Amino acid sequence: MSKKKQPGTLIIIGGGERKDDQRRVLAEVAKHAGTGKLVVATVATENPDETWEEYRQIFKELGVRRLEHLDVRFREQAKSEDRVKAMAGASVVFFTGGDQLKITSQLGDSPVYQTLEEIYAHGGTIAGTSAGASVMSETMLIAGDGEKSHQVGQLLGMAPGLGLIHNMVIDQHFAERGRLGRLLGAVAQNPRQIGIGLDENTAIVVHDQESFDVVGAGAVYVIDGSTSSYSNLGEREQEREKTMSLFDVKLHVLSEGNRFNLRDRRPEIPPRPEEKAGKPVAEKVA
Amino acid sequence: MSKKKQPGTLIIIGGGERKDDQRRVLAEVAKHAGTGKLVVATVATENPDETWEEYRQIFKELGVRRLEHLDVRFREQAKSEDRVKAMAGASVVFFTGGDQLKITSQLGDSPVYQTLEEIYAHGGTIAGTSAGASVMSETMLIAGDGEKSHQVGQLLGMAPGLGLIHNMVIDQHFAERGRLGRLLGAVAQNPRQIGIGLDENTAIVVHDQESFDVVGAGAVYVIDGSTSSYSNLGEREQEREKTMSLFDVKLHVLSEGNRFNLRDRRPEIPPRPEEKAGKPVAEKVA
Repeated sequence: MSKKKQPGTLIIIGGGERKDDQRRVLAEVAKHAGTGKLVVATVATENPDETWEEYRQIFKELGVRRLEHLDVRFREQAKSEDRVKAMAGASVVFFTGGDQLKITSQLGDSPVYQTLEEIYAHGGTIAGTSAGASVMSETMLIAGDGEKSHQVGQLLGMAPGLGLIHNMVIDQHFAERGRLGRLLGAVAQNPRQIGIGLDENTAIVVHDQESFDVVGAGAVYVIDGSTSSYSNLGEREQEREKTMSLFDVKLHVLSEGNRFNLRDRRPEIPPRPEEKAGKPVAEKVA
Repeated sequence: MSKKKQPGTLIIIGGGERKDDQRRVLAEVAKHAGTGKLVVATVATENPDETWEEYRQIFKELGVRRLEHLDVRFREQAKSEDRVKAMAGASVVFFTGGDQLKITSQLGDSPVYQTLEEIYAHGGTIAGTSAGASVMSETMLIAGDGEKSHQVGQLLGMAPGLGLIHNMVIDQHFAERGRLGRLLGAVAQNPRQIGIGLDENTAIVVHDQESFDVVGAGAVYVIDGSTSSYSNLGEREQEREKTMSLFDVKLHVLSEGNRFNLRDRRPEIPPRPEEKAGKPVAEKVA
């Protein structure tokens, strides 16, 4: 099967998005719904009813008029016609937080998942926060300590994700839970994957798998291991508790308004303030 | 005044060094004392007596035979002859943890400090853990949140350190307290300074200000901002709560046995295991 071009949009949120009047991340999700249908998928959470009620209220206040609840608690339900119907034709599908393994084990390869893929392939938007964010990638992080440097013999908890975006591994609550070591470990395992660390209340909006824009209050950390000159991960049989070494990684810190090009792995340098304001760049010499 | 070459050694420890039978970081400190005198400087701590007693016992067990306590609780004491005498001729001066401002405000420009400088200038070793580590640099971090990305309008708590090492800013408890954002903020303020993030129970041994070796269980993060292509720190008047952007930073993760050259800001690539073992590098082709 050849990979087809994905023309849709992904909104990947680092968890902890604000739900009060500063809710600019959720406003971005609502904006993508426009006059279309927004489906809130509560598959990951233990409390689907409360979670649906909370987001229903917020998205309503944000002007979304067509809202639907995708409530899947057992894999059987992901095959049922009424769930497929709830999702079909959505402009935006929004995955709440919870346990990412619930999303993949219950939806993986089901009719509901096929509907999701179709929505995305036809230009729709798939959004997700926290667990709903990590699940976007081919391989997702599901466990592993924060606040700890990576060891060469350490197994990172990983599992196959929904595979909506390629060559990217995503971690959320990034600064808040000190997850640099864990994301570096994932990138070192295979630098083909670019590491994306998302702070809380912060999102990337990925266009056509080609670039992303940053929205929200925190930072987005991009870890590019393709430049790395050395790692000791291959030596793990010898000393399992040895701390990982990894030289010459490239790190970018992006904030709201910044754009990153995924094709050439480059951030776009923003215009200077004086250029933005339309003033001449050259300064007067006294 | 021209900078004179510093021929001594610094042992900079990220705090939380183990004091049980796995105390390889403190063993490194003891090793540098040899048959000479090791001075335990408890200037930073609130509990100088208990702290001295604890380290005295450990260093004794580690074979150090000449141990002295530098107990300075008021600035006046840093000028007294008996304190200068306690320090004079030491092979190693070891600064315990506590509050780094106590060290600089009480010792700065005192006869005790001049004695310290002489010891270092004549090939002695200055060691320090936690507060005793940050204090080594020209400008030291004294406050600032962990687990938070840096904002452009945010003031990092900084103060002049002892200035024993140039062009370096040091942060400790690095992975454990999620201090990436704070160290990136310090490096972005002036990329002349290389950022060193030390995990707990981990140290760098700096030789002649030229290179360092890593000792201990955790990682040492080196943040090199000299390669950076963009930062929005200069735009802070406009939006003080804007999160910092910083593109194209170089990051190295080092672990025990790795060496970093400070002159050209390069880690040394370790020999491959088969080279280390003296085996031929070429593999048999089946």
